[in-house]
Amino acid sequence: MILIGQYDSSFVRRVGIALKLYDMPFRHLPWSVFSDAHKIRPLNPLTRVPTLILDDEDVLVDSHLIIGYLESLVPVERSLWPAAEPDRHRALRVVGLATGLADKAVSLFYEQQLHELVSPVWVERCRGQISAALSVLDEDRAGRRSTNWFGNSIGHADIAVACAIRHVTESLHGVVAMQDYPALHAHCERLEAMPVFREISQPFIPPA
Amino acid sequence: MILIGQYDSSFVRRVGIALKLYDMPFRHLPWSVFSDAHKIRPLNPLTRVPTLILDDEDVLVDSHLIIGYLESLVPVERSLWPAAEPDRHRALRVVGLATGLADKAVSLFYEQQLHELVSPVWVERCRGQISAALSVLDEDRAGRRSTNWFGNSIGHADIAVACAIRHVTESLHGVVAMQDYPALHAHCERLEAMPVFREISQPFIPPA
Repeated sequence: MILIGQYDSSFVRRVGIALKLYDMPFRHLPWSVFSDAHKIRPLNPLTRVPTLILDDEDVLVDSHLIIGYLESLVPVERSLWPAAEPDRHRALRVVGLATGLADKAVSLFYEQQLHELVSPVWVERCRGQISAALSVLDEDRAGRRSTNWFGNSIGHADIAVACAIRHVTESLHGVVAMQDYPALHAHCERLEAMPVFREISQPFIPPA
Repeated sequence: MILIGQYDSSFVRRVGIALKLYDMPFRHLPWSVFSDAHKIRPLNPLTRVPTLILDDEDVLVDSHLIIGYLESLVPVERSLWPAAEPDRHRALRVVGLATGLADKAVSLFYEQQLHELVSPVWVERCRGQISAALSVLDEDRAGRRSTNWFGNSIGHADIAVACAIRHVTESLHGVVAMQDYPALHAHCERLEAMPVFREISQPFIPPA
């Protein structure tokens, strides 16, 4: 498989980290959605990342759908979702909040990047959505005593939260102060020190 | 279960139609992310829809994750994904392109709605992404002779495409001419005539 996209995207990074944790071999092409658009477009008309080229040359888009596909390839004991309910759907909830706040961070970044006169309504809305989601996630994480969010093994919830927060803090200056979210801060510090998080990473590079 | 969100969102609508096709009973609260934000926020800090309240009162967000959860509840013969590969991952591809273009339609709508001076770069980019995805989907659909995208039974690919196109054509005036995409046009006409698509629908209402 070939994973296209730079790891400063939280969505590309969560797929790259999952591929590593599944022990699936893949090639990585760190193409930019702007400067490499001409190379991405023939594979994915949305010109977005992550874009995953499968071994049969079919191409998948969207991190949720890609992860759904990868999960279908692994035996149940290698799944990165909790094995049983209610943890399983609670992990979906955490992933939904994390990827949703990452989405709003991208939206806020481009709002500021592309407009001399930003929309105050949109900026306020995005900032509020990001901080409200972080507060709910922080409270949830603080209430759990386990090493990872759902027990001892790392899973999609752990990864999605860490990737979202790294992206938010690097791409948006002064929007998020991690000391306001101590449980999330500790969660991210621990994960970012892991070899797989160090390997599958890239400092945020704003598009030209 | 309780599904929150208006059916003029393609993301809410695809979940509502899936719930109906699975024969799962649910209550529908057609709350607006703007005028009903105060009611949505305590359930979902992102203040986005679809928001799904489960019977145990846990709350899921994001249409892909919600559909993943609903799929885990049904026996395999009621799944709305193709039973076998490669159709299964090809359906993921179609859903990814459809929901991706729907995403860009929302982004383009707010760009125009919220700015006196839009970003020409962003507007051009969104329009190009939408039309390129529609072209690829149209060519794919035209090459298939089956009643639905993957055989005789309706599935997530069929639903996601129809919901995305209804939203794009109603929310963005003059951006998409469906006669340019004859296979998709026929696909949507057929589905929109089905009782479930007529029941789970709402004409697009721009936010105040």
